[in-house]
Amino acid sequence: MPEAVTVESLERLFESVKNWGRWGPDDERGALNYITKDLRAAAARLVRDGEAVSCSLEFPVLPGPDNPTPAQHHMVLAGDAPEGSGVPHLETALDYIGIACHGMATSHIDALCHVFVRGKMYNGFSASDVKSTGAARNSIMAARDGIVTRAVLLDLPRLRGVPWLEPGSAVERAELEAAERAQNVSVAEGDVLLVGTGRDARRKALGAWDPIGVGLAGLHPSCIPFLHERRIAVLGCDGTSDPLPGSAVEGWPIPIHQCCLVAMGVHLLDNLELGRLAAACAARERWEFLYSVAPLRIERATGSPVNPVAIF
Amino acid sequence: MPEAVTVESLERLFESVKNWGRWGPDDERGALNYITKDLRAAAARLVRDGEAVSCSLEFPVLPGPDNPTPAQHHMVLAGDAPEGSGVPHLETALDYIGIACHGMATSHIDALCHVFVRGKMYNGFSASDVKSTGAARNSIMAARDGIVTRAVLLDLPRLRGVPWLEPGSAVERAELEAAERAQNVSVAEGDVLLVGTGRDARRKALGAWDPIGVGLAGLHPSCIPFLHERRIAVLGCDGTSDPLPGSAVEGWPIPIHQCCLVAMGVHLLDNLELGRLAAACAARERWEFLYSVAPLRIERATGSPVNPVAIF
Amino acid sequence: MPEAVTVESLERLFESVKNWGRWGPDDERGALNYITKDLRAAAARLVRDGEAVSCSLEFPVLPGPDNPTPAQHHMVLAGDAPEGSGVPHLETALDYIGIACHGMATSHIDALCHVFVRGKMYNGFSASDVKSTGAARNSIMAARDGIVTRAVLLDLPRLRGVPWLEPGSAVERAELEAAERAQNVSVAEGDVLLVGTGRDARRKALGAWDPIGVGLAGLHPSCIPFLHERRIAVLGCDGTSDPLPGSAVEGWPIPIHQCCLVAMGVHLLDNLELGRLAAACAARERWEFLYSVAPLRIERATGSPVNPVAIF
Amino acid sequence: MPEAVTVESLERLFESVKNWGRWGPDDERGALNYITKDLRAAAARLVRDGEAVSCSLEFPVLPGPDNPTPAQHHMVLAGDAPEGSGVPHLETALDYIGIACHGMATSHIDALCHVFVRGKMYNGFSASDVKSTGAARNSIMAARDGIVTRAVLLDLPRLRGVPWLEPGSAVERAELEAAERAQNVSVAEGDVLLVGTGRDARRKALGAWDPIGVGLAGLHPSCIPFLHERRIAVLGCDGTSDPLPGSAVEGWPIPIHQCCLVAMGVHLLDNLELGRLAAACAARERWEFLYSVAPLRIERATGSPVNPVAIF
Repeated sequence: MPEAVTVESLERLFESVKNWGRWGPDDERGALNYITKDLRAAAARLVRDGEAVSCSLEFPVLPGPDNPTPAQHHMVLAGDAPEGSGVPHLETALDYIGIACHGMATSHIDALCHVFVRGKMYNGFSASDVKSTGAARNSIMAARDGIVTRAVLLDLPRLRGVPWLEPGSAVERAELEAAERAQNVSVAEGDVLLVGTGRDARRKALGAWDPIGVGLAGLHPSCIPFLHERRIAVLGCDGTSDPLPGSAVEGWPIPIHQCCLVAMGVHLLDNLELGRLAAACAARERWEFLYSVAPLRIERATGSPVNPVAIF
Repeated sequence: MPEAVTVESLERLFESVKNWGRWGPDDERGALNYITKDLRAAAARLVRDGEAVSCSLEFPVLPGPDNPTPAQHHMVLAGDAPEGSGVPHLETALDYIGIACHGMATSHIDALCHVFVRGKMYNGFSASDVKSTGAARNSIMAARDGIVTRAVLLDLPRLRGVPWLEPGSAVERAELEAAERAQNVSVAEGDVLLVGTGRDARRKALGAWDPIGVGLAGLHPSCIPFLHERRIAVLGCDGTSDPLPGSAVEGWPIPIHQCCLVAMGVHLLDNLELGRLAAACAARERWEFLYSVAPLRIERATGSPVNPVAIF
Repeated sequence: MPEAVTVESLERLFESVKNWGRWGPDDERGALNYITKDLRAAAARLVRDGEAVSCSLEFPVLPGPDNPTPAQHHMVLAGDAPEGSGVPHLETALDYIGIACHGMATSHIDALCHVFVRGKMYNGFSASDVKSTGAARNSIMAARDGIVTRAVLLDLPRLRGVPWLEPGSAVERAELEAAERAQNVSVAEGDVLLVGTGRDARRKALGAWDPIGVGLAGLHPSCIPFLHERRIAVLGCDGTSDPLPGSAVEGWPIPIHQCCLVAMGVHLLDNLELGRLAAACAARERWEFLYSVAPLRIERATGSPVNPVAIF
Repeated sequence: MPEAVTVESLERLFESVKNWGRWGPDDERGALNYITKDLRAAAARLVRDGEAVSCSLEFPVLPGPDNPTPAQHHMVLAGDAPEGSGVPHLETALDYIGIACHGMATSHIDALCHVFVRGKMYNGFSASDVKSTGAARNSIMAARDGIVTRAVLLDLPRLRGVPWLEPGSAVERAELEAAERAQNVSVAEGDVLLVGTGRDARRKALGAWDPIGVGLAGLHPSCIPFLHERRIAVLGCDGTSDPLPGSAVEGWPIPIHQCCLVAMGVHLLDNLELGRLAAACAARERWEFLYSVAPLRIERATGSPVNPVAIF
């Protein structure tokens, strides 16, 4: 039975999983350092049949309960280019996108500067290094060369035999371990760990909902030592990894974000589409695969929209 | 010696490489259909040492001669979150990006709806299907699951023994074939073909320049049959594949774009950063590798910013 | 008792108030032509005590039931400018705004190109003149020099002795005339006519609501001949002039917009804040005043956010 | 002959024109307080013939030497609305604008939070009150009800008998006073003072130029006591009031901005179009008129694009 979650236990937990200094005082890559070239080459050897599966939602331009500040997609020039449009002889179409990617309907990666704990971010850098002009430290450029490694999907609805986990439910460490056993797979150093909660299935069945008001399934703080011990490089979820509504513990509203991003230096993938992936895994009875995530190279950014791809 | 480039020869060329109907009347994937699962699995088997190399420029927020309409990167919330900022108890940083990705300083993929020839796009769909609300046909969603396959880099400066090709110079078919021989590699069905012209080296040495006014190196129309015969899936370049200034032939300003996107259904990667990649290839004397390109899943879009990654 | 509102009656109405050709075949200013310099000078003579009252809501950056696609307001540089921020020696703060101004929580002006009736806009120009690159005809540039003239407020809640008109209620012509008599004012040629429905009071009392789902008070089609006979230049409202939900008559969802913008060439001011103005008028028992509206000079635009000001 | 401009003289000047505390410790309106209702009513009585003249440039969407970060104007929906576009039965056109208004080709107003001097802004508020979420103090909301008062144009090219002042030239106090005499007008309390340098004429004749590299005409620091003594409310210019390149005095790059915005609390109007206005004044031999400036009501903003209008 897990320890009661209190300010003290979370502070202890945070300290116990801290990787600050582990890769030097100037390091901004955090747990991405676990991904060695050898591990990457080994991940490529996992490829068998060559199927590729995207883990991204559609770009969220429609307002909705999970998307109160939708992105912009505007045409700059459509197929109606007039004579004399300034593009003589060239028939072309152009568009523009704008997005604040940390929304709850956007598949995105969080940079290590996205969250602070008492004014500090990963490796002890100060929140004041994230200025109005952008992040001088821990920007998404830490992942500038892409994240290519093995990923493992732990499929919680499958484990529980339900179509989805109810909003607000929190998966404990024992369930992650049970899912490993049920799926005959073991989360290991340098992995992207993907946790499926069935959010996509619930959205399809019941429509989108407000994650703040109604809730999202996620991981209980008891999972944090597991993530640390297994030395994962990145954590991804079809929700936001933290259950919502957030923890009621003073100062620890989203312990997974706080311990992963700040203490461990683990980048997070939020709001993935894992329904297609879960089906592809189940069809093969195989929950490990080569995984590729390629953040846009945005200097000083707190994250990036991404379209992560699994290759079987 | 190549045929003179005239309206007639380009029209003949266009017709001769047309893939309209090849994959059915409703197809919007074009030459991406060449990438089979088997080819993808074979590409994964190319991975040896596990090095990953990004082929993207930095997100282009600074105005410059090659970037007259820079992108936006704005913080929504920096590390100075006040008490009472509306995010009580949560210390976080957020930002916003906006971009018209077809600019000349942006690494991006062109969707098949990006260019028309006399009012038609790939597979015969009408330019009028690209409305002010976006592309009803041939949007970037054709590549929604990512493009993962083998890529081959043909390194033209290396072939010619120069640091870069001068702006405006046009590489002919014979040079592509000479580069294949020199590099002991052969462009094949389903490949991403990357053509390096040394633009990054020239930019580093001389600073950015205006591609419209000064020019860019690219491919001569004589390369088009080569691209067609080899059944490439995607063409990428550190420039825009077409040399600039564009062709003076009436109605055919950018024959590579027009023949690849419209006739052949070949997606294009423009303004890649191929300097790092060329060095990685030369160090290994190996110019083929696994390649992953993951456009954002933007419905009705004419393209997407991307960060393509090579894995050796 | 008003004629039943049918397709036929609305078509007849539309034809009967049509100003097409009235100011020449190329005219794009429509009823702004009613505002002569003499009328403007006379309006200035209305000024007595010099009080100025804004009729604009706050820039709508917060999502809400009346604002599903909020505007963007982002700092480009706040007061935390670092040494070496690229602005040496200069301490400055900068920001960025982005807005699609036709939203229901934005005080804005509609250009004459904002609405079409069966493919035509004011003065018979074709909807196809409004391209993906903007409006070649009837853009907001028609009002490029500002709209400065007399305005009259008709205060409907005051007339009815209620704090606000309920969502969906439609004010008929007789009520406009009754308000004129009650307020001892007469709407005349070249006026901006402002119609107050108490939306601000209701919002303050009950919170914002969804105008589409819940409704908005506005003008019944019977008012259209009144607007035409009086030769108003501009119509403004704290709602959208048309009641919502819109008319159920096939092809005539928003007859006020359709007849004002398209037939009469009357620009519209939507979503004004008229609570402050109503109080200022009531305090003086005077419902006419000098009015100034200054759209941004955006070529090819369908409208502009504005902050109209009344001077007493 | 004016005192040499040094760090010491500028510091003395800054102190000598400081209005901090003049209107109370919490005041954020600064010299707008000079505009009384009586002055506004008197300004309205200046109206004679009713001509209205806009003082704004066109919205700056085209890149150029004076506009390295152009604004965005994109259609959201043009006149090609398909059946089933989500707007059933309604034929409409919509667009979107985005702008960082402090650019050098944009007619805009500077809020009092736009500039700091040694970490302080008007009335002694700290630069740290301008956060990544916007300005908690001295935002443009100080002018939320519009600025309506008398304006006076001082036409420097007319005084000098030249079509324009050369880039970089600095107008001294004596010339402002000479212009007053030549135009038979006197700048007084509560005025908007407009200073014309002929920038528009030069742009028309020679094309746009880079104000940073080439320069702009503006006011010498010797004008600052004049602005203070006359108790102007707002200063406007067809340039940026400060000459460019800026002053070489350490810490005082733009003394007019620094003394007006920070010391005196005088809002600034930058990059106006004063060519039309100068012609209208000359035709009447009358350089005073009613003036209306209506910033958008953007909470926490550092300024606003505006279209100021003169009424004769």
